[in-house]
Amino acid sequence: MAVYTHLGAEEMAALLAEFDVGTLISAKGIAEGVSNSNWLLETTGPEGAGPTRYILTMYEFRIELADLPFFLSLLDHLAEKGCPVPRTIHDRDGRLFRMRGDKALALIEFLPGVSVSTPSPAQAHAVGAELARMHLASSDFGTVRANGMALAEWQRLAAACGEAGLSSIDPALAEMVARELPRLAAQWPTGLPSAVIHADLFPDNALVLGERISGLIDFYFACNDLCAYDLAITHLAWCFDEASGAFRPELSRAMIDGYETLRPLAPDERAAMPLLAQGAAMRFIMSRAYDWLNTPADALVTRRDPMQIARRMTFYQDNPGIFA
Amino acid sequence: MAVYTHLGAEEMAALLAEFDVGTLISAKGIAEGVSNSNWLLETTGPEGAGPTRYILTMYEFRIELADLPFFLSLLDHLAEKGCPVPRTIHDRDGRLFRMRGDKALALIEFLPGVSVSTPSPAQAHAVGAELARMHLASSDFGTVRANGMALAEWQRLAAACGEAGLSSIDPALAEMVARELPRLAAQWPTGLPSAVIHADLFPDNALVLGERISGLIDFYFACNDLCAYDLAITHLAWCFDEASGAFRPELSRAMIDGYETLRPLAPDERAAMPLLAQGAAMRFIMSRAYDWLNTPADALVTRRDPMQIARRMTFYQDNPGIFA
Repeated sequence: MAVYTHLGAEEMAALLAEFDVGTLISAKGIAEGVSNSNWLLETTGPEGAGPTRYILTMYEFRIELADLPFFLSLLDHLAEKGCPVPRTIHDRDGRLFRMRGDKALALIEFLPGVSVSTPSPAQAHAVGAELARMHLASSDFGTVRANGMALAEWQRLAAACGEAGLSSIDPALAEMVARELPRLAAQWPTGLPSAVIHADLFPDNALVLGERISGLIDFYFACNDLCAYDLAITHLAWCFDEASGAFRPELSRAMIDGYETLRPLAPDERAAMPLLAQGAAMRFIMSRAYDWLNTPADALVTRRDPMQIARRMTFYQDNPGIFA
Repeated sequence: MAVYTHLGAEEMAALLAEFDVGTLISAKGIAEGVSNSNWLLETTGPEGAGPTRYILTMYEFRIELADLPFFLSLLDHLAEKGCPVPRTIHDRDGRLFRMRGDKALALIEFLPGVSVSTPSPAQAHAVGAELARMHLASSDFGTVRANGMALAEWQRLAAACGEAGLSSIDPALAEMVARELPRLAAQWPTGLPSAVIHADLFPDNALVLGERISGLIDFYFACNDLCAYDLAITHLAWCFDEASGAFRPELSRAMIDGYETLRPLAPDERAAMPLLAQGAAMRFIMSRAYDWLNTPADALVTRRDPMQIARRMTFYQDNPGIFA
């Protein structure tokens, strides 16, 4: 959460003149985004539309410029097919983003909704359905992006942390990674259906209005990978109580049911779910462990505890039957 | 700029149920406020009103709870008299704020507008007029709050920084403070008209729509003090180019003209303006110098350069005629 760059009202107004969105009414820097700065803008709107809100994002670090067309045109593709994702606002020359020095600026739709901390079963059902809708909608998206957080990256992060580093977080973590990472690598499924997946659909990245999903946001991990793996990530992210860590079986059932209303899992996908869920856990264990060891305790970015996810990993190993 | 406390959507929804504002549509943590957390909310609005935006503030530090009723009821008083300030939304029991543990939460109106970095003369004229409107409107505000940043506090901060501390910023700063602070104390005017003043009306704290002032915000330094001193602070804050530091005479004239359209300065106020402007400069020199010496360079809060204001102090000493 941060706004890294000061963008004055005059500069913002000049930038907006490059888009058909009217003139600036309001601009608030918002505390979202780890690797970019974001503003919630209101303008007088395009001709005849009336006041309209947008999110302006300045890409500061991490996201390679080369990937921006993928992310931004994916939003257009998904929105076109009825997914609740923010459209990219193209500038008057049709461009998806504009440069300001060495930083890129993009304007996207503002979507209403709030992120919940303790989802209801109906919300889990709805997010399952929206995830399936996205997988169906993205299957004919022409552009391809490899998953930068796939198994090879978990292995690289494990090596970078080192056994000593992982042990310094928790000795049980070092043991778990040493034992499970090779097993996941050996057993990781191939040949399951793939599409462009969200790959990071935590409740933070879904907007909810009542029981309805009003938005899926933050597609900066989106990539081509297994559909069922995306469901496994979303399951990991939604189906445990944040405070107690307890598994919430009613959310698990609702999410999978919701997913299958639009895209029933094939038998081999269903059979792979326990392993994919463990893989999903390993992916977040490794990124959190690496960040834990490499982020100063007093940094702007909140460090997230890898052990929270390690406990979910153990749960998945002990309870493969939840996906049966 | 920060959001210090995580407030989940469920908790926010429960909080909003205590107000007649409808249900939550959207909530974004905003990157404003140094000593509090702020969210821009949209709700379905009070009965019949339609979607409405609010600012929710959680008071984290610094502001004494005892002062909150002053700040929040001042907003109501000024709004009632036509000043462009956000009204406080009272809860269903009529309270100005609610407690959450040891922190206070208040809901205020959202006002449109943007903060400009390089104001136009018309905007300076408008802010001068709004400042005068506020001084007239606040003259019958019943509650009183002493200025916590008055001359005695400059002296306390100067002692806390010490000559060595000030010299470490710039040797000229230590000399200026040693020479000018006693002179200001000896010559500080008494008996000029007073009211509740804003006391911190930098362009950041004004919202602008075109040439109109759509909002005055951030009243957390508001206090009873000299009206002309508030004009001097606003002059210091608006009438110099941020980048070059150059005095902008056209803004100075426009602001004073704007002020005098509603509240002409008395002869003794006008005569005191050069000294009051130097006092305004000393007030911000001392708070910035203290923060400079006591804020880690990598802290969340941006340190502001006291020397920027010291140069304005010198300008005011050399050019008393600008207020003639």
